Amino acid sequence: MFDKFHDECGVFGVFGRPDAANLVYLGLYALQHRGQESAGIASVGPEGRILSEKEMGYVADVFTQERIARLPGDVAIGHVRYSTAGGSMLCNAQPIVAGTSKGQIAVAHNGNLTNGDELRKQLEAEGAIFNSTADSELFVHLIARSKASDLEGAFIDALSRVQGAYAVALLAPSRIFAARDPYGFRPLVLGKLGDAHTISSETCAFDLIGAETVREVAAGEILAIEANGVRVVRHARGEREARCIFEHVYFARPDSVVFGNSVADVRQRFGRQLAREHPVPADIVVPVPDSGVFAALGYAQEAGLPFQYGLVRNHYVGRTFIEPKQTIRSFGVKVKLNPVRELVAGKRLVLIDDSIVRGTTSKKIVRMLKDAGASEVHMRVSSPPTSWPCYYGIDTPRRKELIASTQSNDEIREFIEADSLGYLSEDGLLEAVRNDDDPRSLYCTACFSGKYLRPEESEAVLVAEAAASVASR
Amino acid sequence: MFDKFHDECGVFGVFGRPDAANLVYLGLYALQHRGQESAGIASVGPEGRILSEKEMGYVADVFTQERIARLPGDVAIGHVRYSTAGGSMLCNAQPIVAGTSKGQIAVAHNGNLTNGDELRKQLEAEGAIFNSTADSELFVHLIARSKASDLEGAFIDALSRVQGAYAVALLAPSRIFAARDPYGFRPLVLGKLGDAHTISSETCAFDLIGAETVREVAAGEILAIEANGVRVVRHARGEREARCIFEHVYFARPDSVVFGNSVADVRQRFGRQLAREHPVPADIVVPVPDSGVFAALGYAQEAGLPFQYGLVRNHYVGRTFIEPKQTIRSFGVKVKLNPVRELVAGKRLVLIDDSIVRGTTSKKIVRMLKDAGASEVHMRVSSPPTSWPCYYGIDTPRRKELIASTQSNDEIREFIEADSLGYLSEDGLLEAVRNDDDPRSLYCTACFSGKYLRPEESEAVLVAEAAASVASR
Amino acid sequence: MFDKFHDECGVFGVFGRPDAANLVYLGLYALQHRGQESAGIASVGPEGRILSEKEMGYVADVFTQERIARLPGDVAIGHVRYSTAGGSMLCNAQPIVAGTSKGQIAVAHNGNLTNGDELRKQLEAEGAIFNSTADSELFVHLIARSKASDLEGAFIDALSRVQGAYAVALLAPSRIFAARDPYGFRPLVLGKLGDAHTISSETCAFDLIGAETVREVAAGEILAIEANGVRVVRHARGEREARCIFEHVYFARPDSVVFGNSVADVRQRFGRQLAREHPVPADIVVPVPDSGVFAALGYAQEAGLPFQYGLVRNHYVGRTFIEPKQTIRSFGVKVKLNPVRELVAGKRLVLIDDSIVRGTTSKKIVRMLKDAGASEVHMRVSSPPTSWPCYYGIDTPRRKELIASTQSNDEIREFIEADSLGYLSEDGLLEAVRNDDDPRSLYCTACFSGKYLRPEESEAVLVAEAAASVASR
Amino acid sequence: MFDKFHDECGVFGVFGRPDAANLVYLGLYALQHRGQESAGIASVGPEGRILSEKEMGYVADVFTQERIARLPGDVAIGHVRYSTAGGSMLCNAQPIVAGTSKGQIAVAHNGNLTNGDELRKQLEAEGAIFNSTADSELFVHLIARSKASDLEGAFIDALSRVQGAYAVALLAPSRIFAARDPYGFRPLVLGKLGDAHTISSETCAFDLIGAETVREVAAGEILAIEANGVRVVRHARGEREARCIFEHVYFARPDSVVFGNSVADVRQRFGRQLAREHPVPADIVVPVPDSGVFAALGYAQEAGLPFQYGLVRNHYVGRTFIEPKQTIRSFGVKVKLNPVRELVAGKRLVLIDDSIVRGTTSKKIVRMLKDAGASEVHMRVSSPPTSWPCYYGIDTPRRKELIASTQSNDEIREFIEADSLGYLSEDGLLEAVRNDDDPRSLYCTACFSGKYLRPEESEAVLVAEAAASVASR
Repeated sequence: MFDKFHDECGVFGVFGRPDAANLVYLGLYALQHRGQESAGIASVGPEGRILSEKEMGYVADVFTQERIARLPGDVAIGHVRYSTAGGSMLCNAQPIVAGTSKGQIAVAHNGNLTNGDELRKQLEAEGAIFNSTADSELFVHLIARSKASDLEGAFIDALSRVQGAYAVALLAPSRIFAARDPYGFRPLVLGKLGDAHTISSETCAFDLIGAETVREVAAGEILAIEANGVRVVRHARGEREARCIFEHVYFARPDSVVFGNSVADVRQRFGRQLAREHPVPADIVVPVPDSGVFAALGYAQEAGLPFQYGLVRNHYVGRTFIEPKQTIRSFGVKVKLNPVRELVAGKRLVLIDDSIVRGTTSKKIVRMLKDAGASEVHMRVSSPPTSWPCYYGIDTPRRKELIASTQSNDEIREFIEADSLGYLSEDGLLEAVRNDDDPRSLYCTACFSGKYLRPEESEAVLVAEAAASVASR
Repeated sequence: MFDKFHDECGVFGVFGRPDAANLVYLGLYALQHRGQESAGIASVGPEGRILSEKEMGYVADVFTQERIARLPGDVAIGHVRYSTAGGSMLCNAQPIVAGTSKGQIAVAHNGNLTNGDELRKQLEAEGAIFNSTADSELFVHLIARSKASDLEGAFIDALSRVQGAYAVALLAPSRIFAARDPYGFRPLVLGKLGDAHTISSETCAFDLIGAETVREVAAGEILAIEANGVRVVRHARGEREARCIFEHVYFARPDSVVFGNSVADVRQRFGRQLAREHPVPADIVVPVPDSGVFAALGYAQEAGLPFQYGLVRNHYVGRTFIEPKQTIRSFGVKVKLNPVRELVAGKRLVLIDDSIVRGTTSKKIVRMLKDAGASEVHMRVSSPPTSWPCYYGIDTPRRKELIASTQSNDEIREFIEADSLGYLSEDGLLEAVRNDDDPRSLYCTACFSGKYLRPEESEAVLVAEAAASVASR
Repeated sequence: MFDKFHDECGVFGVFGRPDAANLVYLGLYALQHRGQESAGIASVGPEGRILSEKEMGYVADVFTQERIARLPGDVAIGHVRYSTAGGSMLCNAQPIVAGTSKGQIAVAHNGNLTNGDELRKQLEAEGAIFNSTADSELFVHLIARSKASDLEGAFIDALSRVQGAYAVALLAPSRIFAARDPYGFRPLVLGKLGDAHTISSETCAFDLIGAETVREVAAGEILAIEANGVRVVRHARGEREARCIFEHVYFARPDSVVFGNSVADVRQRFGRQLAREHPVPADIVVPVPDSGVFAALGYAQEAGLPFQYGLVRNHYVGRTFIEPKQTIRSFGVKVKLNPVRELVAGKRLVLIDDSIVRGTTSKKIVRMLKDAGASEVHMRVSSPPTSWPCYYGIDTPRRKELIASTQSNDEIREFIEADSLGYLSEDGLLEAVRNDDDPRSLYCTACFSGKYLRPEESEAVLVAEAAASVASR
Repeated sequence: MFDKFHDECGVFGVFGRPDAANLVYLGLYALQHRGQESAGIASVGPEGRILSEKEMGYVADVFTQERIARLPGDVAIGHVRYSTAGGSMLCNAQPIVAGTSKGQIAVAHNGNLTNGDELRKQLEAEGAIFNSTADSELFVHLIARSKASDLEGAFIDALSRVQGAYAVALLAPSRIFAARDPYGFRPLVLGKLGDAHTISSETCAFDLIGAETVREVAAGEILAIEANGVRVVRHARGEREARCIFEHVYFARPDSVVFGNSVADVRQRFGRQLAREHPVPADIVVPVPDSGVFAALGYAQEAGLPFQYGLVRNHYVGRTFIEPKQTIRSFGVKVKLNPVRELVAGKRLVLIDDSIVRGTTSKKIVRMLKDAGASEVHMRVSSPPTSWPCYYGIDTPRRKELIASTQSNDEIREFIEADSLGYLSEDGLLEAVRNDDDPRSLYCTACFSGKYLRPEESEAVLVAEAAASVASR
């Protein structure tokens, strides 16, 4: 409904607790924001048999008491998935469970493989059968076909053949393997709950189950979580990392620590930097809830302006919604947000959001605020203009639908009907996540810069878009 | 799940729009916070026949496209209901539809009648039959039995016999009557959508459908909304009003205007006054989301302290939740709230909430913040101690379960493990809602003061509690 | 879907067993053929409070384990209801539970009151409110308004004011009253299960729970089932009885004993008499399953012809059915019935059914059999032509839709495309149910003869039909 | 619930009709008796893409209008599956859809492969991954891995590697392949609906959609159904056939023609032969409905005894059933069957059923009839004693649970408390299905005789049972 980039998945796992599936359920509950299309859990049941339950829907709807009871055992992994256009089918839900020459396995994957199509064709030619349209199935096939003598070797083999982004959990009857790709695009953290170990896309899920963060799974690392503890299977360090900066901009929950930084903290720093880069005479700073809240707090602090909740969010917004026959102005946004007239009327507003994708929602919000009496609305965005699609596991519109790829700053401002518009600079953005090393060699900012890891990729965008544009004439 | 007083209902109505039931659905959607147990709509269908649909559950779950299609017509009213203990049954859902000597009618009621039991016994003795345990059914019986020659007279008759709190909508084939009790306990507002009229418990519902507020239905007033417009049927002014102050403290949505004041505004004034009454050296002001947010903003502004989102709320919290077998400390609260360690660690916090009922949730939150490293937690509450039950339509625990009725301030502070505790004074509270008249003769503060409208009522509490206490020995 | 008269309800009750609601569930399960629209149970819970659960749907779908668990207590009554046109609404489901001046009561009713509309108007004028469109609600109002000092007196009072057909169970906290109208139109039987007592519309429900039949509740009798046993409250004998002959023709289950006769037995006697009245040279006797099975067995025995299952019934026929876009000949019937080509091809058939209402289904069946190769199809019907509507609790079409009310025997034969057609005579029909007394003063045959109990009733049919016919021009 | 062997599946397909999925739905509806666990349909949608929907449950519950609308196209296949112990999981539902090197395919399979485990191990060793525990998945893998250049060659390849029983439909974007194993264990018939072609496990499904039977798919034959019509791809005739005799004994619907004979007809011949083999002085012949009905008709005709419906079946028996806490004698059977006391009391009965598996149900039925007053109950079974498990697609208990494998005739008679017991002889059974050739070389009777097609198979039973017996000590 809303005009945002979307994360594709969340991954969670527990090794060594009698109620493992129940804890995974809780973990997925905390990771629900990373995927609302489907939810699934696989556990190691009696006699080492892998059992699984998955379905379209929210974690809390998919998993009833009865269903969790069907997943006994003290080892389990789980997955939540976001619905990308066209791919919203049960067969794409994860974990993927399969019987292979290396025994029964289950796979939960967050990310996107850039050589997925190529691998799929190759494997089909060799006789492989595919039951889903998801890249993630490739891991299973590559493991099953590996010449390695055991699962561990086969997993190393499989990872050596895939390119792109992955944070992946591989469940086997007596261990969980956890791995991140050599660039470390997508996050994955190792935690501890008493004697048990746990992995998660984000630390907020550890908080819910009372686990402590141990450390991130490193880029290029494979861990084996076993009865004896955690063992580093391999660590293939690359020449650079490419952590997804959008986790800090929008995806991750603010109470998570991602790539070594508190998300809430980083977002406030974005806001402060934004205030320095784009000051404006105004009365109040108003966030678009909830995505703009922390940046707005930072902006307000830096600018010395009052922070105000000028837009209120309806907490009961659900999946279904029956629109009235007679159209109401700005209706779609109103279901979710409502201005507080008394707070904004007659005021000059700095309106803060994390990003602008197509611009349509921003336009409705600006209009709603002006209808409520705001005298000026100055839009400030806590990230640079999003002009390029992502290939590493984020669902983005095609390039020509990204308003910033075809319109100048001023055209965008005019489109959204704001009185002024300012985006955070890429330098400012990266500065906010700086720890010891140069963030330029640690983060991927391709969606802002078009600087993909491989030059041919940005080429690919232009060619593909041109082809699509010809085809659609 | 949470330790709050609960509102009992929301009422909405539309007269004069072809898609009336659809608009009522939207209105109820916006009023969902006033009642999550059941939702219902009644409309005037072909040949003036009243049709209705109601069910246990959320508005968005109860009303499918198909169901709304079964409610044609350009006049409709709706109701959301909160689940009070023991009374959670479909037969109590509203609107109540009935065939009477005055024709078919439907009733939607927010409030509680203080002479309900007495009237019920009297009516049963006269041969009336009751299908629910809800007070609201009394309206229907009193109308049916009135000697008045028409529905309007019968409604006036009925209202003259009931005591207590009501904001009520009465649907008849060609009009909607809207009425508030002479004390005006519960809110009800009249709006306009083009040529059509609409009524609502709160103005936020008007915003969603694009209607404008016309005015409040006055205390003691009965309106008839008809094809010719709105007509004042009667206005029985009482010697004083008794608007529920808790609407401003907690119930109403911050984007509503209630009893002539913006809720968001009033809550910030509560916060500012609280800062003046209970200052404390601290580093940051942290709200309990979402109930404490506006008061915390006010407190921070007045105290000159930074406002920080030190607690993050999980937006996917739903109805069902499967707890793990092995108990996790503070689990119940963690599902909903999580501290942001990086923001609170090592800091002295002013923690703001709107009220403390039993104290158990506050205790868990304080503990959670200290576990996350907060060095001090100073609890500030933006209303006085809640020590008395309500008889006018709010679901409150019995007196002895209200921590403030049996414990001193200091005992409460100790129980919730806060470093200090301060409540807003009743004077401060009332000052914040002052317009022209003395708020002391306009608002009901019985839940804080025990000063009920009739002296015998507070007597009744003590007697009933004593009896219950004897019975439970 | 099928062209039959329909019974309106089944009633069941248990007094004195710890799992009363569960036994009522079983009883309703066995009575499911008497009503598939809704099912409901009311039990006497803790502290004598009457609890109830009812919903649209089949007994087995409505009542889950969880739902039955919500109905504790050792006294309970239940009801299944058939969906008559227009009245298919939850508010019409029974038992009806109500709080009255005589305490809480629940009512389950099978039948139809002939002075229902009149009573309803009268009661509304006195201030009564109606929540359903069902006649059965009248019992509750009449009881509530009775001047009698106790429930028993009020029930006697109430019954003295209603006219028409009723077999009714009235649940009070410490007893069940069971009553039949003075004509005894609808059946009701008393049974015994150990020390407990039970009542049922049919004896087949006793068989399922292992109860024994004690006796019928007599026409005009009121029984009170209490802790001390069964007490006759009143027995108002009328000048004659008017048992519904259609219970034997079609409604009752063949394994029930109704009005003192085994239904299976009576139907075979119908068949034998039919063979005597309408013999025909033929090869085999084929029933329309399942309604014609027993009559066909009797016909075959008497005629000395082989009985053959030339039509097979699909046992999985359910509620929903998705028809193909491209119409298939005789499709509706085919879903339920299929001829066995090998058994009927080249044969002369006697086809037996219990009745013909509109004739459309018979026509499809005859055609289906001829398509399957039958050389001749001689239709024989085990009851007289149904030419008149019923006012006593059976759902029948309007008179002009009854093929036998407007068409001669020969015209009907031609319409259904049979080679010959024979109906059982009314004399033959009644002879088959003769025990000691003259069945002519014991049974109602108005649907065949138009001889209603009161002369003005048949007059009423003609007038109403004429009016309807004028109105529809 | 009942003590019967169970068929494992039904298969249906349509080529060349715009509403193909709808017709497949109807076909599956008619085949529901062959599998109640799950139902699925795959169709060829726009751009030749194979779409599918499948779920646990009955055909009518799984397929809503909306769901069928998601399956456009004029080619479709479907499958119903029976729930075997342990294997009741959605992943085992069919059709199985997969992307392969030969394009997208869908497979629906009835039968059981005797070299399934062996093939699975072999394929896993080659890197194949398995998503279900069903044999049927092997077809997909063997096709995907075939060296053949096209799908047709790959299918021939695949069939050359599997052993055991299969009637299989293979859906490709432009054709349906239909095949039966060389022994022809399981039935599959080709039909015609106007210009379109259709395949089905049984002819009764053709009747429902108005199709005509063309001929059986021959044992060992592969057909390709294409735009140009039906083409014989291959016909590998074996030295003998091994049609499952149990299709005639119990599985198939009586209105089907199976293996060239009318099922209703064959069952009556079984009954007549049974009367010749085991005559007994008696008053009436009573079938166990519905399985014994046709055999009972045959017995009664041959014996010159009256056929009587002494047991009546409840047609509303559904999936769920809530048993009362206090056990009732013979309860489980009573839910489904009830004796008609008036027909059986004082009579000597010949009770006819098709088979006895464990004997527990027969015992309850005999007892129920004696409780209802039957003076003698002579059990007659229209097939030989079932003493051996089946490997060819029928779900049978383990050998030691088959009463006839461990008990003599007389011991069985005593166990079921019958006055006498007679089974149809194997010779008598086979004689009833004789057409031109010797049925001994056409039918499989291994469940009666233990004469499996390969000697090692019966060896295998004894060894496995011994091992299981040791293991369970």
